[in-house]
Amino acid sequence: MTSSNIKMLDEFLTQCQQRVDQRLAEKLDTEIISHTLKQAMQYACLGGGKRIRPVLAYGSALAVGGELAAADNAAAAVELIHSYSLVHDDLPAMDDDDLRRGKPTVHKAYDEATAILVGDALQSLAFALLSSDGEPLEATTSLAMVHLLSQAAGATGMVGGQSLDFEAVGEKLTLEQLEQMHKLKTGALIRCAVLLGGMSAGSASESQMNALADYADNIGLAFQVQDDILDVTSDTSQLGKPQGSDSDKNKPTYVSLLGIEQATELATSLSDKAIAALEGFPPSADPLRELASYVVSRLH
Amino acid sequence: MTSSNIKMLDEFLTQCQQRVDQRLAEKLDTEIISHTLKQAMQYACLGGGKRIRPVLAYGSALAVGGELAAADNAAAAVELIHSYSLVHDDLPAMDDDDLRRGKPTVHKAYDEATAILVGDALQSLAFALLSSDGEPLEATTSLAMVHLLSQAAGATGMVGGQSLDFEAVGEKLTLEQLEQMHKLKTGALIRCAVLLGGMSAGSASESQMNALADYADNIGLAFQVQDDILDVTSDTSQLGKPQGSDSDKNKPTYVSLLGIEQATELATSLSDKAIAALEGFPPSADPLRELASYVVSRLH
Repeated sequence: MTSSNIKMLDEFLTQCQQRVDQRLAEKLDTEIISHTLKQAMQYACLGGGKRIRPVLAYGSALAVGGELAAADNAAAAVELIHSYSLVHDDLPAMDDDDLRRGKPTVHKAYDEATAILVGDALQSLAFALLSSDGEPLEATTSLAMVHLLSQAAGATGMVGGQSLDFEAVGEKLTLEQLEQMHKLKTGALIRCAVLLGGMSAGSASESQMNALADYADNIGLAFQVQDDILDVTSDTSQLGKPQGSDSDKNKPTYVSLLGIEQATELATSLSDKAIAALEGFPPSADPLRELASYVVSRLH
Repeated sequence: MTSSNIKMLDEFLTQCQQRVDQRLAEKLDTEIISHTLKQAMQYACLGGGKRIRPVLAYGSALAVGGELAAADNAAAAVELIHSYSLVHDDLPAMDDDDLRRGKPTVHKAYDEATAILVGDALQSLAFALLSSDGEPLEATTSLAMVHLLSQAAGATGMVGGQSLDFEAVGEKLTLEQLEQMHKLKTGALIRCAVLLGGMSAGSASESQMNALADYADNIGLAFQVQDDILDVTSDTSQLGKPQGSDSDKNKPTYVSLLGIEQATELATSLSDKAIAALEGFPPSADPLRELASYVVSRLH
């Protein structure tokens, strides 16, 4: 990436992060009678994070000619699902992590029961956002967006992938099985973020949506491969979580299957394919293009 | 209740239970790649249970002139939310219960991680159902139903009430605080079941919906008061969970605040108010009326 590209992407990332943080802060500052729950939900969601999924939703809305504002609910909804999954993933019965984004995880800062409830409530809130009044979208589009998110989040998507991941601990997976697991575990929600962004623009053609799906599938996998690479090459302070935490758990990774060199080649090739999928899109798709490069060049 | 009323209600209950079981079985027999997750979701949802919320949804659809079939998705969706909440409630970090409906709880039959994921996936599935194609309803109605469920399930509803319940352990609550907690913890989803049933008929008037809401608020509270009574008067085999399990946990209950006699009077008066709310409804509202009597006469 050239320095002007990096500057453009940085500005775009900051703008998207601010928009989604604002929307999340608003939605988490409503009438929630349980003070502990409200505080813990804010703690879980408003503590930073790269906001990759919201950024993809916004980038996708722009790519098909929409405005950033149209994608606010979609961006916040996918981030709520992502945040809830992190809170539950970190629980002692799951990955048992004490640190997340450099701060104590929710069950450490509060307690396990609160962390379970926080995750549950964040999931509901995601669906509340996509179905709220004041959406300028057609009801049929909003309903389709709800359906897409429910499929991407649940047993046919993210949660299904997490379950496959648990089943895989200590097992020897083939590259195909590893890919299937990640397609669900992280890929489904990334794909959903991109598609919801495109749908929220309200005017995308079917071929544009297909191209976005293709982009999303490639960038989703690239993101995961790069995560596996960073898990062995970064240090704890860069990652905000213990370095090597995945390989320590005897989980199969792209690095353990392919080695660093081949894994790096794979990540680059997936990023290139993602960019190729956007051929013919206008310059407003540049943020998505830059993101595809960013995903494989990031250091944490 | 007279014996002919009991017979009519029994037939209605059986019919509703069969309908919702069928819909749940169908929806849980789809493409879920993780075998463990699929099995455990089926274990959590298909093991019986009174299906009170689905029955209310069906009864409500009939009361406003709809067909039972119209309420199938609404009935299954509220039961999925209820089932997920039970799975998470039973976890060691929450109520730590080993038995549910007379069988080992999900985290006992499987493990804690699976129980967390099962609950998460069941919640997503509820929203998938309400937003699925093939709904004969207008998209605006389906979208409003999604929104209602998201509010009833999340921090402003059921999960908010569960959090208040935790905050209340060992505390002395006033009757008003206890009522507020239960209005969220169990009342919100019961209210939602009744309203979704009414909405699914597609033709309810605003005054009918208001009457249904009034009915639901009273029956929801009556249900909780009766639960507290049964917790001290029934034995373990009738309840399917350890007798006295709530009072043992030092949780405030209607019985601990009012005594058995006054609690029983309260339950009856709430049931009467629920029935009164349906004044002017046609005979097709009889199942809802009978249900109001059933709720306070049931033994488990």
